[in-house]
Amino acid sequence: MSGLFITFEGTEGAGKSTLIKEIERWLREKEIDFVSVREPGGTVLAEKMRAILKTPSPEEKLCDKSELLLMYAARAQLVETLIKPALAQGKCVICDRHDLSTVAYQGGGRGLPMDEIDAVRNVALGKFRPDLTLLLDIDPKLGMQRARSRGVLDRFELEQLSFFERVRKAYLDAAKRLPYIKVIDASKNVDEVRLAAISALEDLL
Amino acid sequence: MSGLFITFEGTEGAGKSTLIKEIERWLREKEIDFVSVREPGGTVLAEKMRAILKTPSPEEKLCDKSELLLMYAARAQLVETLIKPALAQGKCVICDRHDLSTVAYQGGGRGLPMDEIDAVRNVALGKFRPDLTLLLDIDPKLGMQRARSRGVLDRFELEQLSFFERVRKAYLDAAKRLPYIKVIDASKNVDEVRLAAISALEDLL
Repeated sequence: MSGLFITFEGTEGAGKSTLIKEIERWLREKEIDFVSVREPGGTVLAEKMRAILKTPSPEEKLCDKSELLLMYAARAQLVETLIKPALAQGKCVICDRHDLSTVAYQGGGRGLPMDEIDAVRNVALGKFRPDLTLLLDIDPKLGMQRARSRGVLDRFELEQLSFFERVRKAYLDAAKRLPYIKVIDASKNVDEVRLAAISALEDLL
Repeated sequence: MSGLFITFEGTEGAGKSTLIKEIERWLREKEIDFVSVREPGGTVLAEKMRAILKTPSPEEKLCDKSELLLMYAARAQLVETLIKPALAQGKCVICDRHDLSTVAYQGGGRGLPMDEIDAVRNVALGKFRPDLTLLLDIDPKLGMQRARSRGVLDRFELEQLSFFERVRKAYLDAAKRLPYIKVIDASKNVDEVRLAAISALEDLL
């Protein structure tokens, strides 16, 4: 039996990393075999693409279309090399960011047309989709405060508040359209967020 | 007035590098202002993508779709950052490989569907095309002999002869469709190849 593909989404400071650690512990307790990866990256070659995407480059701006194509190059590599083989072996795959991040950041944030994103996704992924996406929703003002308190910011985290407000709106718009997205209120405390996530996972499993 | 965008194409060992040096000299003699770039690469960020594309990676195969998307990520970055601004300043741009290489290598060589390549090109480049493409056509057997005599081979040059035969066929098929492609017989000597290229350039200028 094929494993389940579960992705975690949200703006900066929403608490993805903390929740993912909690969910990993829960899966281990349940003795569910899983692999845990992150996007962009997750394989040797995709991590090289991640470095280009995430490292601030003051001497040369990465243009929006190149950013989009590089995101999908990394995603195609991860899906083909690691995610699909793991699912075929019956493992669950949990992924820190996936396709919905592109809808939110390159679509909502950068303003690239959704039909262009759809066209590139179609080439990169075909009809491959997550079984469940947990979207941690938070007011970007609060999220940015949390993210800044963590230390050095990457190329995306250096964006302005208005950028993250557009990202959040694109996330929530997608959640209205796509039934596999479960929105979790990330302004609540860690226990409440964890329980909401586990409840969605139990429904799926 | 916008400058002219001239690209050089061909399989390994067709003599592109030699011809480009000759054409650079000819442009200088004519006092035509130009910039000379290569693909994939040509900017700081696109050269980082080139390194991923060209370096053999025995531990992890770069999947065909990721290769395609990474090629266009590098191309979009070069076109937006360097080629379009140079053309807008009235400079000629000469480019060692461009879009036709993707049609030939990822389409012909790897066998990716042309409609997928068209879809990604449409996002990456819109309707941007070269004014002239000089296609150096050579029997891959002869070309591979020349390429191997140069030394260490990159990830593409390590492919088998049948791969380059498919690449050549895709190049020649495209040349029948696209009026801006001029095919030059690269089995001829350097002088004859140079004269054929200069004749095509004079027609354009």
